[in-house]
Formats: sequence, structure tokens, C-alpha cells
Amino acid sequence: MNHTEIFKNIIKKHSFLCVGLDTEIEKIPSFLLKAKDPVFEFNKRIIDATNKYAVAYKPNVAFYECNGSGGWISLQKTVRYLKDNYPDIFVIADAKRGDIGNTSKMYAKGFLENMPFDAVTVAPYMGEDSVTPFLSYNDKWVILLALTSNKGADDFQYHDEDGIKLFERVLTISQRWGTINNMMYVVGATHAEMLKDIRKIAPDHFLLVPGVGAQGGSLEEVAMYGMNSKCGLLVNSSRGIIFADNSEKFDTVAAEKAKELQHSMESKLSERKLI
Amino acid sequence: MNHTEIFKNIIKKHSFLCVGLDTEIEKIPSFLLKAKDPVFEFNKRIIDATNKYAVAYKPNVAFYECNGSGGWISLQKTVRYLKDNYPDIFVIADAKRGDIGNTSKMYAKGFLENMPFDAVTVAPYMGEDSVTPFLSYNDKWVILLALTSNKGADDFQYHDEDGIKLFERVLTISQRWGTINNMMYVVGATHAEMLKDIRKIAPDHFLLVPGVGAQGGSLEEVAMYGMNSKCGLLVNSSRGIIFADNSEKFDTVAAEKAKELQHSMESKLSERKLI
Repeated sequence: MNHTEIFKNIIKKHSFLCVGLDTEIEKIPSFLLKAKDPVFEFNKRIIDATNKYAVAYKPNVAFYECNGSGGWISLQKTVRYLKDNYPDIFVIADAKRGDIGNTSKMYAKGFLENMPFDAVTVAPYMGEDSVTPFLSYNDKWVILLALTSNKGADDFQYHDEDGIKLFERVLTISQRWGTINNMMYVVGATHAEMLKDIRKIAPDHFLLVPGVGAQGGSLEEVAMYGMNSKCGLLVNSSRGIIFADNSEKFDTVAAEKAKELQHSMESKLSERKLI
Repeated sequence: MNHTEIFKNIIKKHSFLCVGLDTEIEKIPSFLLKAKDPVFEFNKRIIDATNKYAVAYKPNVAFYECNGSGGWISLQKTVRYLKDNYPDIFVIADAKRGDIGNTSKMYAKGFLENMPFDAVTVAPYMGEDSVTPFLSYNDKWVILLALTSNKGADDFQYHDEDGIKLFERVLTISQRWGTINNMMYVVGATHAEMLKDIRKIAPDHFLLVPGVGAQGGSLEEVAMYGMNSKCGLLVNSSRGIIFADNSEKFDTVAAEKAKELQHSMESKLSERKLI
């Protein structure tokens, strides 16, 4: 999927919502625990209920691999289910990988070749050869961490050399490695005011924005400072949607929450005359 | 395992060798491919042949997870085999994980609770709350990336604020989060001369040093600049040992290569009068 196709889906669905599948087994409704694969069953119902409001899904790999090989099977089934049933959906492995070249190549193979993910989140600390192996696949994406949504973002990401902060350097240098058709950046909604400066460095790239909702970020501000002429945003919500309800109606409630966000996004797209 | 116990094993074995299990299925001897789990079978034979020369093993998680749930099973069996048969061996998940707090907690649970790894390598980009969940286990370790062995290390790790480089800031700030009993640092052997400066910031911590051999680093220099009064080094070799031979005698040849490195390490320990 390329930049234009993602934008087309946003226009079609009036939404730039990414639903985060942070599927923690302790938090899923208890009636699902008797299913053969409760995590996959939960995801399937969430996906079926919410997909018309979303353009992307983002399984958070930690929540699968902590269950070992069984968790990995749930992950494989989830991405396969998404691709088989909703081929227009952009599917992100939120994995924060990154290692020396021959090792990143293996991570890339796992997510982009052996599983049909469209994108992988990658940590930039190890530099170019840790990132480029993920960029060697057609129509697949790296989503590189720039300014993350957590408190610890302050520890190193603002480290400042001659007025250039580390996350700004990441944004600048990494543009030599990829294009707007195979690289996005993670920018946390908790730093929405920074989006203005980030857009000066990366005006055209898509930004994956976590932290709206449970982590306190505001959709209003993210759209104000981050939206560009091709929308340029995928805004993620995880817990606020998937764990909004714990009863047998969890999927209906999740759909309502997704719809609420989609409505707000529709307004933003409309204000910018993109729809 | 704590700092003292690791040092004791080094003294007992006259070795600070870590064997990297970067077990790429395309590179293992073809006669093993008929085994039920060739990756595990390869690891088992390598471990049985080399363990008397090594104090640590380091499965590189990418090489397992790229094979999906099956790869994860090989990984689980490998760490279990090590712990059941060689309980003194320090076992590192080379995973380069790191995410927001609730997600790092899941990664930590997967490696340190659901699997019996002693340590996980962690990327520092996301700061404190991405690292501390791994530090909440007794006698378990974070091995934090400081200065890595690859070319891309130049892109961001030397980013310099008022004379303090990013990797130096990582070394300084992270010492507020952990102790010499639960935190080590990755310092690539390809930057051996930097070990002198690194020892000024972290005199007592163990350093995990990859990059000797295939990547060009020198054991001589690593020992000269990096060794402290408790050795303070775990030097990793992967391909140079495990893929030294491709015949039915691959394990015997691997043992010879491990023994050669152990002999060099013995000299270094002896020169420092640690044995």
C-alpha cells in the first residue's frame, strides 16, 4: 500500500483512525476465555465491529509474544484475518525492533515476508543499517520512532546538539534512507504542540500518533498542528476502544467508541476541505 | 544471578565468553534439517560442545521469531535446555526491546517470567519507563544499548550536547534506574578505544561486548581498555563459533573456536592477576 492508497482510504472512510490491538488476556471479557484462542477471538470480534470506522490496525507485539509460541499464533491469525477480510486496511506490527543489519533483516523477514504486515515500528538508536533492511520490500513501511508519547521521551529524545534535538536529527537523517512512500514517524499525541516544528522537517510524511485517549493526548491539537494536505495522520487509540466494555457487548461498545473518534476525525477532515 | 556469581563463574572457567546463538536455518549443516526441530537440535549440540569454554549464551531473538510460532518454540526449548543442564550459564535474550511502560512490562514478562532468561537487551530511545519494567525481577538483568558495534552507531549515538555524547548520556542517566547487579551495557568491540572513556562513566558495570571476530573487533583491545577488577566483560562471538564449520563435525569445530577464544581470555585474566 502506498501513500496515495492510504490517503484514498482515509477519504473513503472519513477516518484516519488506527485501532491498537493491545490485547491483554487478563483484560478481555471472561466469557471469551473458553474459546480455543481467546486473544484471536477477541481481536476478530473487535475487527468485525470497528473496521468501518478505521483505516489501520496495530497489534502491539509485546501483548502476543509474552504468551510465547501460542501468542505468536494469535498474532499470525490476527494479521491474516485482517488481510483476508479487509484488504484495504493498513496493518502495523507495533514491534519497536532494530538491530545490526543481518539481524534487522531477520526481523523484517518475519513481519513483512512471513507475515503480511504492511509496516513495522522501528527504534532508531542503532542508525541506518538497523533500519534499511525493513525498507527493501515494495509497498511496505518502516514507522520510525521520533518523539514518543511516554514520560521517558524526555530522557534522550530532546538531547540537543547545536539547537537540533535528537528526535529532529532522527527525522532529518532518516529521510535519506526512505521516502514518503515507505517511511512514517511515530509522534506521540502527548507532544501535540511539537507537531508544528515536526511538520517543518517532515511536511509530507504520514505520522502515526499514539497517546490520544488513555495517555491524555488531544485529537483537536493533533489535527490542528499535524494535518497536511493528504491528511498525513494515522491516530491510534487502543485501550479507549478495545477495553471500553467488559461484557458480552464489548464489541458493540468498542464500535461506538471507534465511531465517536471517527466522527471527530470526519469534522477535522471536513474543516480542512479534504472531504 | 548477581554480579558476584557471574564473576565467580568467570574465575572458575577462566573465560568471559558469551556464545551468540544467531541460529539461521539456512546456515546450519544440511544433515540436521531432517531433525524435528533443526534449530533446537543445532543449538543443543553447540551448547553441549562449547559450554565448558563459555559463561554465557545469547540467543538472538530475530533469528527465531522470523520463523513465527515454530521459531518461538525453538527459542523456548533452547533457553530451557540451557537452564536445565547448565544452571551456572548466564542466558541473555538479545531482543533489543523497549516500549512505553505497560508494553515493556509485557516484554519483560515474556522473557524473564514466562521464559527463564537471566537478561534482556533493551534499546534506550524511549527512556526510563521503557526500561524499568525489566528491572523489577530479582537477579534478572537489563543489558542496555550504549555504543553498538554497527556502522549505524555513528548516526545518533555520538549526537553531542555540551560535550556529552548520547551514548554517554545513556550510561549516566540509566545508572539512576539500576545497579551493577541488574544492569549491564552493550558496547561494541568495534569501538574498543572508547571503552577507556566508558570505564570513566561506568567503572563497575559488566559490559556485553559484541563485534569480536566477524565484525572486526579485537579481544586484545577490548581487554586492555574494558577489563576491571571483577573482569567486567562478557565478550560475545556468534558466527565465528557456531558457523565455523558446516559438516557433521560442526560442533567439534565450534568447540575448538570457543576454546581458542577462551585461551586468549585466560591470558587476559591472568595478566590482570584475576586468576
